[in-house]
Amino acid sequence: MISETVEIRGHLIDSGVLSRVLDDILEYGGDYSIDTFEVGKTPLDESYALLTIRTEDAVDVARLVMRLQTHGANLTDPGEAHTSEVETDGVFPDDFYSTTNLETVVRLGGTWVPVENPEMDCGIVVKGDRARTIAVSDVRRGDQLVCGASGVKVVPLPAIDRSAGGFEFMKSDVSSEKPQALLMRQIAQQMRDIKEEGRKILWVGGPAVVHTGAAPAMVALVEAGFVDILFAGNALATHDIEAALFGTSLGVDLQQGRGVEHGHEHHIRAINQIRKAGSIAQAVEQGILTGGIMHAMVKHRKDFVLVGSVRDDGPLPDVYTDVIEGQRAMRAGLAGVGFAIMVATMLHSVATGNILPASIPLVCVDINPATVTKLADRGSAQARGIVTDIGLFLEQLALELAPGYRAGERPGDPA
Amino acid sequence: MISETVEIRGHLIDSGVLSRVLDDILEYGGDYSIDTFEVGKTPLDESYALLTIRTEDAVDVARLVMRLQTHGANLTDPGEAHTSEVETDGVFPDDFYSTTNLETVVRLGGTWVPVENPEMDCGIVVKGDRARTIAVSDVRRGDQLVCGASGVKVVPLPAIDRSAGGFEFMKSDVSSEKPQALLMRQIAQQMRDIKEEGRKILWVGGPAVVHTGAAPAMVALVEAGFVDILFAGNALATHDIEAALFGTSLGVDLQQGRGVEHGHEHHIRAINQIRKAGSIAQAVEQGILTGGIMHAMVKHRKDFVLVGSVRDDGPLPDVYTDVIEGQRAMRAGLAGVGFAIMVATMLHSVATGNILPASIPLVCVDINPATVTKLADRGSAQARGIVTDIGLFLEQLALELAPGYRAGERPGDPA
Amino acid sequence: MISETVEIRGHLIDSGVLSRVLDDILEYGGDYSIDTFEVGKTPLDESYALLTIRTEDAVDVARLVMRLQTHGANLTDPGEAHTSEVETDGVFPDDFYSTTNLETVVRLGGTWVPVENPEMDCGIVVKGDRARTIAVSDVRRGDQLVCGASGVKVVPLPAIDRSAGGFEFMKSDVSSEKPQALLMRQIAQQMRDIKEEGRKILWVGGPAVVHTGAAPAMVALVEAGFVDILFAGNALATHDIEAALFGTSLGVDLQQGRGVEHGHEHHIRAINQIRKAGSIAQAVEQGILTGGIMHAMVKHRKDFVLVGSVRDDGPLPDVYTDVIEGQRAMRAGLAGVGFAIMVATMLHSVATGNILPASIPLVCVDINPATVTKLADRGSAQARGIVTDIGLFLEQLALELAPGYRAGERPGDPA
Amino acid sequence: MISETVEIRGHLIDSGVLSRVLDDILEYGGDYSIDTFEVGKTPLDESYALLTIRTEDAVDVARLVMRLQTHGANLTDPGEAHTSEVETDGVFPDDFYSTTNLETVVRLGGTWVPVENPEMDCGIVVKGDRARTIAVSDVRRGDQLVCGASGVKVVPLPAIDRSAGGFEFMKSDVSSEKPQALLMRQIAQQMRDIKEEGRKILWVGGPAVVHTGAAPAMVALVEAGFVDILFAGNALATHDIEAALFGTSLGVDLQQGRGVEHGHEHHIRAINQIRKAGSIAQAVEQGILTGGIMHAMVKHRKDFVLVGSVRDDGPLPDVYTDVIEGQRAMRAGLAGVGFAIMVATMLHSVATGNILPASIPLVCVDINPATVTKLADRGSAQARGIVTDIGLFLEQLALELAPGYRAGERPGDPA
Repeated sequence: MISETVEIRGHLIDSGVLSRVLDDILEYGGDYSIDTFEVGKTPLDESYALLTIRTEDAVDVARLVMRLQTHGANLTDPGEAHTSEVETDGVFPDDFYSTTNLETVVRLGGTWVPVENPEMDCGIVVKGDRARTIAVSDVRRGDQLVCGASGVKVVPLPAIDRSAGGFEFMKSDVSSEKPQALLMRQIAQQMRDIKEEGRKILWVGGPAVVHTGAAPAMVALVEAGFVDILFAGNALATHDIEAALFGTSLGVDLQQGRGVEHGHEHHIRAINQIRKAGSIAQAVEQGILTGGIMHAMVKHRKDFVLVGSVRDDGPLPDVYTDVIEGQRAMRAGLAGVGFAIMVATMLHSVATGNILPASIPLVCVDINPATVTKLADRGSAQARGIVTDIGLFLEQLALELAPGYRAGERPGDPA
Repeated sequence: MISETVEIRGHLIDSGVLSRVLDDILEYGGDYSIDTFEVGKTPLDESYALLTIRTEDAVDVARLVMRLQTHGANLTDPGEAHTSEVETDGVFPDDFYSTTNLETVVRLGGTWVPVENPEMDCGIVVKGDRARTIAVSDVRRGDQLVCGASGVKVVPLPAIDRSAGGFEFMKSDVSSEKPQALLMRQIAQQMRDIKEEGRKILWVGGPAVVHTGAAPAMVALVEAGFVDILFAGNALATHDIEAALFGTSLGVDLQQGRGVEHGHEHHIRAINQIRKAGSIAQAVEQGILTGGIMHAMVKHRKDFVLVGSVRDDGPLPDVYTDVIEGQRAMRAGLAGVGFAIMVATMLHSVATGNILPASIPLVCVDINPATVTKLADRGSAQARGIVTDIGLFLEQLALELAPGYRAGERPGDPA
Repeated sequence: MISETVEIRGHLIDSGVLSRVLDDILEYGGDYSIDTFEVGKTPLDESYALLTIRTEDAVDVARLVMRLQTHGANLTDPGEAHTSEVETDGVFPDDFYSTTNLETVVRLGGTWVPVENPEMDCGIVVKGDRARTIAVSDVRRGDQLVCGASGVKVVPLPAIDRSAGGFEFMKSDVSSEKPQALLMRQIAQQMRDIKEEGRKILWVGGPAVVHTGAAPAMVALVEAGFVDILFAGNALATHDIEAALFGTSLGVDLQQGRGVEHGHEHHIRAINQIRKAGSIAQAVEQGILTGGIMHAMVKHRKDFVLVGSVRDDGPLPDVYTDVIEGQRAMRAGLAGVGFAIMVATMLHSVATGNILPASIPLVCVDINPATVTKLADRGSAQARGIVTDIGLFLEQLALELAPGYRAGERPGDPA
Repeated sequence: MISETVEIRGHLIDSGVLSRVLDDILEYGGDYSIDTFEVGKTPLDESYALLTIRTEDAVDVARLVMRLQTHGANLTDPGEAHTSEVETDGVFPDDFYSTTNLETVVRLGGTWVPVENPEMDCGIVVKGDRARTIAVSDVRRGDQLVCGASGVKVVPLPAIDRSAGGFEFMKSDVSSEKPQALLMRQIAQQMRDIKEEGRKILWVGGPAVVHTGAAPAMVALVEAGFVDILFAGNALATHDIEAALFGTSLGVDLQQGRGVEHGHEHHIRAINQIRKAGSIAQAVEQGILTGGIMHAMVKHRKDFVLVGSVRDDGPLPDVYTDVIEGQRAMRAGLAGVGFAIMVATMLHSVATGNILPASIPLVCVDINPATVTKLADRGSAQARGIVTDIGLFLEQLALELAPGYRAGERPGDPA
């Protein structure tokens, strides 16, 4: 292992800088020890940290130091800058120093020289006693480029003056540019573990589960035992039942890939039929409802809590129209729950987040990043978010967890 | 006026093509009469239309014909193609024919010649008996370019086979790339008209009205008489009251531009205080609540209907916890309403859309295009959408409608 | 077959109303013939259509008539309204008339009576000579409800006054609430068909293909022969090569589900290494590049056109830095292309849409609906859009098309 | 001032917890000193902090302690829990303890008792030797509720196991739910300051500036001296010039609130006309171009750098078609710049972010949060984001900064 010592000074904690430094060390496969940490006692005081960082080899440690410099960390003993000659136009030497967009100085012949035109992702070309950034496309054979991290220091940005108020600095944590297939498999594994521990999996879902054609996948997950309790509203159950009852027309529709539109009278007829039967369970018993998610829940004796909202038509007879009573029923349903997954619903996700202990892991899946961030903003700090397509996500989860599930089963097919 | 005769054949109605042709004529400042219309009797039959189009001058009519060609309409008597010589490299002649991306033929010496490499926004260069598209940057001095629309015909795409099912063709009607300031003024005018007719303006709002700092603007609109009745949930009223009661801390917060985060105990304390007072109106009477939107509504004796949802904390004592009772109260509140405006709430917008007669004009304002399209998908065909920032929109509306409103008043200030 | 005759009057074509009527008939499994069509000659004239509609049975035809009434179409001979008695509180009779939100009249004892309080998805209760809408939850045993469509007429909304200008009416065609798995299979089939016809498949891709972990799926598609030519920018190729070269650190990263962040120096080092090798193909030959999408393209002798943009670092030596030259290379690459698929890139999608003949089918896949609608707004009317997650979409497409592709192969694995 | 001592243990730095604790103290108007900080030396070691917190009065300090408990910080000397009796059904005592969703214990008679059913935003009811959470709507007269923060401790969540990899925790920093009008005024002030210092303001803009009708506002800002240099692409300039040249048709269009659609041949004719004139400046000189943003820039002798992209039509003669040359021109344009504002363009924003020193403050304004976060992800850590509507934002900025600017001037009007 090769080690170097770096130091950093500033508002290390409240700005989150030190946290990012430590993150980066681990991400580069390195290790660290914090040798000194002098904390700023008051909001105005700066802190100081001295760290030893370790990596496998010398090249890695040099690259890690460059990386940490983007946060304002520098070698305690930077030494002298080394340069190599460019051999081909438009190509940097292999171990070129890759710049940040911070003010930077290089040590040439014992003197610290400022690098002109700070710009990120460039090299540093040295000519006489001057140094400046240069883009790779502008470098020419014979240029002297700074290589490695020694002899280079960056000057961190001054701390932001909090008293000035103003808007937040940006840092994104929720993005659709993540490897979703991998996340899906992590969740599948988490679900298997929870079931082995004998604990329950809570699902919270919105009607897009049906609209995206994922009902058959959801049915497969119910049958495979991965849906112990479902929190939803009138809409998920209504559209699921509508698809099951009006299979000829809307089933065909779903198969042709056209979206289910509201304004059709199907949904209000579906609601009326269940109201006539008395409840969803009675509609199953009476042989009226023979397919779909709600049918599967009833058949496999799984619990569900449907809580209404002001936009509901009907509603179905199983729906709590009083939201406070609905909250009580949801609270009662939490007993034994070890994992919660929320798909495609902002209203019921936030409602569940409100009553869920922080100790229960919680995953929120939605194509809309806003749903995911709103949940976290509302206090559910343990929430993890996946921004993805619900239809494909549930299909893949069913393929992973439900043995025998064939992709592309007909939506609305009797299970 | 100059006129030309164009014809078009195909699935003109079900595909919406004829509708787009007529739209474009008006948009180009032209006029039309439909001379012949032979309708396809069954779903498989094609239709045929013969139109006379009229514009101010010959240049306009040529350009309009080119435009209509993008839909597959052609001159009935296209004549011979005219060409002009390019005078400068990289510059088309003034009246060059601007291509579509459809298959195109040009009549040269009495023969219809196909244009090679169909590509939109190009010219057509003719060399001997061949013709091909050319980009403006590739044209060279001396090239012969087709000018005007005569002698050019496009071959419309075959109709989509509906039986093949499949996904929808794209056409966007809701976009943030619209001149919002203008729309705001149109709405202001519509509101003035409605008030002059002695009818009521219904507002439906979400908590982002408060979060975006627009509460003072909203208060000004209440005071100016443009808010007759308000439909909302627990959240708008709670955050408004929270801002009024905890002005020192959260007021400062709003002023510094930091977002109001949930998870603070302020909102639940605010709710508790109003529950203790008995109702919002009693809190105003008892001098506990002295500012904000709800205070203004009470003071000016305006109605509001607050309907709860499953995610509510508390709720406030004025909130209907039974959603069906809440719907009844909302229905009762519709009497006399002549205009509805929905800002920053999907739940209550859809709920109101559900009960609103189509005869009442309805505007939906939200930064999220999904809210706006969802409303229309749910059957409120009369809905008009504005995708914009609620905070700035309400501030500008207040500047327009509320005499004496000063921009940037302190949120949470007593009215 | 049962048939009924309906009529509709108004701005049937320019408003798109007739198109929606015909759509709905087919969607309900019905058939039609247009018996009379009197077209409005000028923009101000109304049109009139008389249609015979046919369905399998009488219940269907009644429901279809109700549906068409939402657009303002009515039975030519509506007859007298029928009512049935409600048997259970909160339950409508089976064939209840389901309301629209339009002004409605019912014929009672030979007189047309207006229905009070127009509201959608309600029933119509008749008491003496009055009729009003009623929600299902409010209906009581003994109430007389209108059943079937006879004796009911709706009054269509007046046409919108175009001269008033103003904002557009909303109609959404692009939505994430579609059955994506089904669409994916339709595309797979389309690709198989194109290959059987001996034509090429053009891919246009953005870097999110790599960021979402879909590179192995993409590699599998290349190997299975479904990627004939690729249009992309510097970013897709750079991040793909970066993942292949820095497998140990970033490969692990991708596998752990952390997003690839820019600002790391990896990407600029990856670029530098390829610049040193001379080109991507030479890097493959020299054994430097041994995995990833670009490697697969080179190995299988597939063409790619990389066109740069102003935000590029480097760029890679294969990248056209002159965008007009890049456009020319893309045009040359279109020869033989029979199908185009665009994934996760707005810039290159629009660029390709600009040069693509309308006769080449084109699918645009993106998690952001804006990309999809922007493409259509820019003139590519043949574009079909799928709003979904790129990572899951490509994984499923690979499972469908690439025999032997195992889900969840390691990103960055040598092929 | 009242003070209390709190302590917290765990992965305080890498998890960002301590940073959030310090943030909250300041946000509640409090002050702190860090009395002890024992840093975990290695990635596996926990850290420990002992803080003295100070607020104005005892009520504030109790509420601040409750707030800090949401992060796992507790009083060092918690003492015994106090309870008060509930006087009215559904109303908590004034100083009730507001719960977190973390595991919590209360000290009753010297014993630490776990609180059953952890749920946030509730009270804690004590009955005999047991304690449980209770919602405000469930509390009944006579219940004993815990009040104040003494005698209450929360058990922080265990640190996340990093080696398990997995998805990120959610934390949103960019949101449209911010007081935008206030942010706008902060930016206006920053611009005034920069101009007083004699430094330049750099604008980076996309075509939505024109599409949203903000061109007149932008012209006013140019004239008022707040636009020193503009970086953009072909599209902004083209659509601006198109609006100026085809004022009759498209000007009307903009005024009626219809979006400008591409596919019209106007834009390619506009480009052709400027190509014929030789350059934008020559078109101004020749009297061809008499209004719009580009005209104002030329008239006031302001610099602009237009860099092309692969999707460009034309392009305009002023556009750099080679992106590397374009980057060089942009770099040259940075001299003297003291502030950068980016509106409605992802491509040119990222491009400018790439070359901008971190020392230049940078604001990114876009209706799409993705643009704003992408900029930060690409390494521009100093970037501040505002998610808002460009049209309204620029109109308000012009009202603030450009004396005499009248809201709602006609787009395309000669300046």
